[in-house]
Amino acid sequence: MNDKNSMSVMEAIRTRKSVRSFLDKPVEEEKLNEVLEAARLAPSAKNLQEWRFVVVRDPETKKIFAGQASGQAQLAEASVVIAACAETDERMMKCGQKAYPIDVALALDHITLAAAALGLGTCWIGGIDGQIVKQVLGIPEDIQLVGVMCLGYPADPSPVEKSRLPLEKVVKYEHW
Amino acid sequence: MNDKNSMSVMEAIRTRKSVRSFLDKPVEEEKLNEVLEAARLAPSAKNLQEWRFVVVRDPETKKIFAGQASGQAQLAEASVVIAACAETDERMMKCGQKAYPIDVALALDHITLAAAALGLGTCWIGGIDGQIVKQVLGIPEDIQLVGVMCLGYPADPSPVEKSRLPLEKVVKYEHW
Repeated sequence: MNDKNSMSVMEAIRTRKSVRSFLDKPVEEEKLNEVLEAARLAPSAKNLQEWRFVVVRDPETKKIFAGQASGQAQLAEASVVIAACAETDERMMKCGQKAYPIDVALALDHITLAAAALGLGTCWIGGIDGQIVKQVLGIPEDIQLVGVMCLGYPADPSPVEKSRLPLEKVVKYEHW
Repeated sequence: MNDKNSMSVMEAIRTRKSVRSFLDKPVEEEKLNEVLEAARLAPSAKNLQEWRFVVVRDPETKKIFAGQASGQAQLAEASVVIAACAETDERMMKCGQKAYPIDVALALDHITLAAAALGLGTCWIGGIDGQIVKQVLGIPEDIQLVGVMCLGYPADPSPVEKSRLPLEKVVKYEHW
């Protein structure tokens, strides 16, 4: 693995960005396995590990996705597209949220940071019809599709200034 | 900051564990701010940043939480309890999921990994009544409580072997 593998957590958090343009360069098997391993090690409610990942590298399938998600050519460009699903009984956490979208999100977050440390780029794809993704990949009706993520070598690896609200706007102390 | 601040992403992912017993030692302001900064830098759908965090250090409030969440004394023990909320219009991602629980989860995941790199422990608290948390903290009705997290110095900082499904059980290639 390369030197970037030792990138610190905060450096990965600071440099990770949403990558929407990728080089025509495959992600090595070893690196793909490392980001999947990062996902596998994520925490989940009651350690249920309901996450299931469909890893797509087939150019034809990626082209279909790009054609369905207008303006998101990165779905065809990216070396890998990951459809992150949940095989779930849809149990609730007591805060009143379903556990599975949160747990799958944690696994995908691990992927984004592990990828950044390997010099890879990722992007959550919001604007794609989940029903079409499920149909194309043969994902059964009772499996939940939570997110779709691109993974590959970024065309522009330079970091960007993140546009974020200041802490004062998002943190309160002791009381709302 | 200490040496652990340079912990690599994969090391943090491998060593992070759910901590349910904490030392009676406050988390330094600087470290608290670093984990909150990690949350602030998380990605979110359309960069909406709907996350809002109520940081609780008051022993009385933490005791109330511990009393409500049977068997979870760590809510009183932990130096900090974070109630992670969303100020949201509840918009959907096209995969058919609400964006806000996922985005708040990403921010909390950043906290768990940044904390691990600082030698701190975290734990998602599932079994607590969200309505009581909201009431105690004065969180308005229209604000969503997504998760509650403990943060502090772990009583036992040694890593644990993670019990996880093997990759073959959670990863499929090209097709479900």
